[in-house]
Amino acid sequence: MRVKLVVAYDGTNYKGWQVQPNGVTIEEKLNDALTNLFKTPINVIGASRTDSGVHSLGNVCIFDVDTRMPAEKICFALNQRLPEDIVVIDSCKVADDFHPRFVKSKKVYEYRILNRKFPDPTRRLDTHFYYYDLDVKKMEQAAKFIEGEHDFKSFCAANAQVKTTVRTVYACEVFKKDDVIIIRVTGNGFLYNMVRIIAGTLIKVGSGDIRPEELKDIIEKKDRGFAGPTAPAKGLTMISWEEEK
Amino acid sequence: MRVKLVVAYDGTNYKGWQVQPNGVTIEEKLNDALTNLFKTPINVIGASRTDSGVHSLGNVCIFDVDTRMPAEKICFALNQRLPEDIVVIDSCKVADDFHPRFVKSKKVYEYRILNRKFPDPTRRLDTHFYYYDLDVKKMEQAAKFIEGEHDFKSFCAANAQVKTTVRTVYACEVFKKDDVIIIRVTGNGFLYNMVRIIAGTLIKVGSGDIRPEELKDIIEKKDRGFAGPTAPAKGLTMISWEEEK
Repeated sequence: MRVKLVVAYDGTNYKGWQVQPNGVTIEEKLNDALTNLFKTPINVIGASRTDSGVHSLGNVCIFDVDTRMPAEKICFALNQRLPEDIVVIDSCKVADDFHPRFVKSKKVYEYRILNRKFPDPTRRLDTHFYYYDLDVKKMEQAAKFIEGEHDFKSFCAANAQVKTTVRTVYACEVFKKDDVIIIRVTGNGFLYNMVRIIAGTLIKVGSGDIRPEELKDIIEKKDRGFAGPTAPAKGLTMISWEEEK
Repeated sequence: MRVKLVVAYDGTNYKGWQVQPNGVTIEEKLNDALTNLFKTPINVIGASRTDSGVHSLGNVCIFDVDTRMPAEKICFALNQRLPEDIVVIDSCKVADDFHPRFVKSKKVYEYRILNRKFPDPTRRLDTHFYYYDLDVKKMEQAAKFIEGEHDFKSFCAANAQVKTTVRTVYACEVFKKDDVIIIRVTGNGFLYNMVRIIAGTLIKVGSGDIRPEELKDIIEKKDRGFAGPTAPAKGLTMISWEEEK
């Protein structure tokens, strides 16, 4: 049967999702736990290959296995075989042809900026500390230009190789919760570093370096050089992945 | 001059506040940073000797130094000499006879319980994960019995040596924020492990093992054996320390 897992992780100690030679990854830890559980080599296929240091509350992956264990029990058996910074929060049986990269999906990411005068050591792992006061209202105005179907070439790492840089952002919201500014982006897919470049650009808007309405031009330029810097990975959390029917 | 520091830390990687032979402590890291900054041996005196694994957003300590550096700049110089899990959020000059252990003070602690079906790896360091549904209403009712001046012997680690186990709890509040239950305790001082034993007892109330009104008896027994277990250190954060005038 084909099984879908929903996986939460603190990405601090990992070289991102995807298996690679130079460091431990989330995918590798899941493969090891599954291989240990089912005593046969298993390789998962993930929905989102999150970067080194990026967190997730709900990444999705699939694998095939021949077992009598009910799919919904697999998460419990896996969690006993995983380190405490990776937790499988759901497991269920899916159709044999279900593939998270080839279905229409809705992904939600949040970028968190701790905006105050001193860092908070208890929130240092999943927020980006920013000292100067940011104007949330301006960031909100700028975020509106991100929404819709656009060619997001200006918001894509310059070295990325993709067929098309057109994506649809369903919503780009900015709000403050205590001293954390949250940028929540919902879309059908994101380019390499796209959310972090959006965050870096909105920080420039909040600090007054870029006017909110300039976002329109930055998008139209289709040139990475016009957007803001790529904000640090630790502030980014993948919130959820959902199939769109 | 005598200088007061306000210190925030993630206690995960420390053997508590107080210098001790078997592991690195917050006090030791502050002493090292101050000694390095002022090129003379300095030892701080802390307001609260928090336990191994306990966090703080505002512990207080003092030290004496002969320097022309303005007291309010010291925090910045220190933060450059401290690891990122310890942050001095304020420094100021105080009276030469000010001593945080010999003044009347108000301390606020929070105990955080992540109450849901799966752990959240991004909040594993400063919440205690609890699987079974807790009844927050009952916990709130029980918490009311904690308030006031009482002999808290039942809520003190059995091996603690203190002159008196009478303390005043100004407020003991229980509330839920998303899937985290917060127990906020404000008092003029706390016995060894007191807030963690209060938390362990309120968890027993929330799970139905202890009735809210039984708290009255537990206090009256003056015997550690009648209260609940000591909840894990990682869920506890010292929020603030304030001098009472």
